[in-house]
Amino acid sequence: MLVNASPDLRQQIAETPALHPRAGTLRNSPIAAVLLTGAEVDTIMGLLHLRERQAFGLFGTAQTLAVLDENPIFRALNPEFVTRRAVATDIAFEVLGITVTAYALPGKVPLFAEAGEDPGVTEDGATIGIAVSAGGKTLHYIPGCAMMTPALRQRLAGAACVMFDGTLFTDDEMIRMGAGPKTGRRMGHMPMTGAGSTLEAFAEIPVGRRIFIHINNTNPALLADSPERAQLSAAGWEVAEDGMEIDL
Amino acid sequence: MLVNASPDLRQQIAETPALHPRAGTLRNSPIAAVLLTGAEVDTIMGLLHLRERQAFGLFGTAQTLAVLDENPIFRALNPEFVTRRAVATDIAFEVLGITVTAYALPGKVPLFAEAGEDPGVTEDGATIGIAVSAGGKTLHYIPGCAMMTPALRQRLAGAACVMFDGTLFTDDEMIRMGAGPKTGRRMGHMPMTGAGSTLEAFAEIPVGRRIFIHINNTNPALLADSPERAQLSAAGWEVAEDGMEIDL
Repeated sequence: MLVNASPDLRQQIAETPALHPRAGTLRNSPIAAVLLTGAEVDTIMGLLHLRERQAFGLFGTAQTLAVLDENPIFRALNPEFVTRRAVATDIAFEVLGITVTAYALPGKVPLFAEAGEDPGVTEDGATIGIAVSAGGKTLHYIPGCAMMTPALRQRLAGAACVMFDGTLFTDDEMIRMGAGPKTGRRMGHMPMTGAGSTLEAFAEIPVGRRIFIHINNTNPALLADSPERAQLSAAGWEVAEDGMEIDL
Repeated sequence: MLVNASPDLRQQIAETPALHPRAGTLRNSPIAAVLLTGAEVDTIMGLLHLRERQAFGLFGTAQTLAVLDENPIFRALNPEFVTRRAVATDIAFEVLGITVTAYALPGKVPLFAEAGEDPGVTEDGATIGIAVSAGGKTLHYIPGCAMMTPALRQRLAGAACVMFDGTLFTDDEMIRMGAGPKTGRRMGHMPMTGAGSTLEAFAEIPVGRRIFIHINNTNPALLADSPERAQLSAAGWEVAEDGMEIDL
């Protein structure tokens, strides 16, 4: 995600070597920092695809880093190159000249860590949102959120941009389509539409741009010409796509 | 890997529902069985990309399954759908009408399981080759092998096809290219060429077809028009490619 808040910041990013492929080495990537928003499989397994000997900072809450510790396969991220940094919620820190604040969200433990019964929703740092601020503007990145709360509503009000959990269009769509036995809420995701939905919640939150991310392949709004996509557009929502650049 | 030993077997495979996308369900894959040849990251992480609720048999030695057990993230393969089956070496078993025999190879523990020093080469079942037999012919699949041994030479002699570890062209190529500090042997792979190499070893082993697999992106023989590829061809070796079908 490349955030361009202003021409000045754009220039600053252009001059930051860490954000571009590194010259002079045969194998390299421009990735200088990774901030994990949780420890679900789809959030952490991409780490195993990164270059073995590429230095970067790996940020996550204590709960998330503990899951990596419990899985020796992540030792593939050699500590000689990858520094794990525990992030406290609600305390701003700087990464590459950008101010970042992590905050706890209503969510659930990773599916693979569930022990039998429905673990229910927690808000203890297992799932986080992040506020990214630069050039006087703030973008929120929230790929998983089980429900809207008064505290979250207050936090998001006035943001230049919110990228939000768009897993399912309707809470029961996976069950109806025969794709799985669970509702979105059981998986820790509030639905785009219906009672207690994202569209409903954001109708009362003033935000510059609203962009859905983390969209499941059962979600009909993935199709650009669907009536469901039109419904999102009418409510002021965009749907993210690969390679998207966001100017705020 | 689809092995067609004869028109009869081809017909049998065509009629085996497990080898084709499954009709009548929204989400499915034709994968009915997975046999792990070890527990290195590049061997096991693909499991995390498989469909969550797709039934298949997961075969591996006790050492390999123990690594999965030690990494809770692999609980993403729900035991309700994925049955783990411990494979003993040198005892043939049947999978989908094909006879399979696993055997220990000289190899090493996964990189992420190394504790500081060079763990050296072991031959205890952490790395295996597999013999796949049907229609009276046998194919060997050996993606990692640290050295040729008299026992392996004897086992492979007379095979219809051997698919063999082609990680590096020369033992020190990663060091020379600045891509990493290790030799192929330090990583548990014998080189294609040079002293103690695969070309040298197979010069004395009668085999129907010889196909290199598991080729590192530093290996110049990956390029079809390279002199190194010509050297392999002259020695009777092919290089595997995506979508390859093998008729024996």
